[in-house]
Amino acid sequence: MSRIRIGLGIDFHQLVEGRDFWLGGVQVPHHKGALGHSDADVLLHAICDAMLGALSLGDIGVHFPDTDNTYKNIDSKILLAKCAQLIGEKGYQVVNVDSTLLLQAPKIKPYVPAMQEVIAKILHISVEDVSVKATTTEKLGFVGREEGVTAHAVVLLEHLPG
Amino acid sequence: MSRIRIGLGIDFHQLVEGRDFWLGGVQVPHHKGALGHSDADVLLHAICDAMLGALSLGDIGVHFPDTDNTYKNIDSKILLAKCAQLIGEKGYQVVNVDSTLLLQAPKIKPYVPAMQEVIAKILHISVEDVSVKATTTEKLGFVGREEGVTAHAVVLLEHLPG
Amino acid sequence: MSRIRIGLGIDFHQLVEGRDFWLGGVQVPHHKGALGHSDADVLLHAICDAMLGALSLGDIGVHFPDTDNTYKNIDSKILLAKCAQLIGEKGYQVVNVDSTLLLQAPKIKPYVPAMQEVIAKILHISVEDVSVKATTTEKLGFVGREEGVTAHAVVLLEHLPG
Ligand SMILES: [Zn+2]
Ligand SMILES: [Zn+2]
Ligand SMILES: [Zn+2]
Repeated sequence: MSRIRIGLGIDFHQLVEGRDFWLGGVQVPHHKGALGHSDADVLLHAICDAMLGALSLGDIGVHFPDTDNTYKNIDSKILLAKCAQLIGEKGYQVVNVDSTLLLQAPKIKPYVPAMQEVIAKILHISVEDVSVKATTTEKLGFVGREEGVTAHAVVLLEHLPG
Repeated sequence: MSRIRIGLGIDFHQLVEGRDFWLGGVQVPHHKGALGHSDADVLLHAICDAMLGALSLGDIGVHFPDTDNTYKNIDSKILLAKCAQLIGEKGYQVVNVDSTLLLQAPKIKPYVPAMQEVIAKILHISVEDVSVKATTTEKLGFVGREEGVTAHAVVLLEHLPG
Repeated sequence: MSRIRIGLGIDFHQLVEGRDFWLGGVQVPHHKGALGHSDADVLLHAICDAMLGALSLGDIGVHFPDTDNTYKNIDSKILLAKCAQLIGEKGYQVVNVDSTLLLQAPKIKPYVPAMQEVIAKILHISVEDVSVKATTTEKLGFVGREEGVTAHAVVLLEHLPG
């Protein structure tokens, strides 16, 4: 396989009242949270999928099926760590991650440095190699109506020397 | 032009009763299929656009206009082969493709290996350089209502030596 | 930081009657235009975000807050030039940009060469390193109902020698 590879991840979750809201491994105070089998961390899921996709290792649904009770309410940081291990076993590491959260509310800017730190630590890279951006959809669509949240992530992987 | 280049493709089709459903060059059994001028293979179209975009060669609508009867009901594998030829003529080949289908139903996991094989063969690359992932939108939006299907693809291209 | 880096940008604007419609630095004749604090150029905003994201420099909302009157109705070409300056100060330049506009109407194909020229000039790269593609959403969702416009962009950056 080539030395440099590209990956893409996209994830969606419904937003509902009375769930904790996990984004990028950080709990964000909000009256709604994302619904899902695991902790429903849409950003970590998109990053996982981008990493798996870059090496054609399937997707998060293949590795961590939502029909498996092992992953019920699981902390998605554990899933990200498993993805990091999977690409490491193939001799690859993340060069950089860039991501965008589509979210009408709340403002996540204050939580971005913490998310970067969490993700960088799990991926064994520098915080400046992890980018988390956010945008509203200007009230358009299901994100605009605060019915759901979406995350897109791209990653560049490189093969370690030797 | 630089040795390594990046491309992005996004495509949409409506889902309607009574059409064959082509995804990644493979026919997927389903009560609905994608509507379009060609066979409406949303995944191959996104990959075509990513390849063309990486070399600024326009998009699928420019090369294969839906006003041209030549492309009526055409097998999108022919379009993908033409895109492969176009980038080959510029001295480039695909390093890897990663893609995500946004689709509420059916489950496409059983068809992914066949899709990878079809795409890899047309692009003259290894199956492990072709990634096809899928996610529902958790019932959100037009994908969630099974009104349509979306595909996103990214590619990395590299210039062949010499 | 690594020599090669990847970035992703996604932007949304509502379409309303009686606004000028700026896309890729070019005014496109249409009965609607994009609503926003600046000139609401969704394509340039997505490219800005991809460039900033590639170097983990935050996003357009961080650098050019819509609460700041400096940016009221500002020409987004100025914002793109600032992003080019920011990555230049870090020693990076754009290898290539690929982008996709999601837009039901009008057809933007006639304006693409002008957009490529504007963007290439600001980024100090060749027009063939700037790709602008467009697709409808086949009448699906808010883009299909002509309520809004979306742009996705990816960039590859490389560190300048020395
Ligand atoms: Zn998820
Ligand atoms: Zn299509
Ligand atoms: Zn904008």
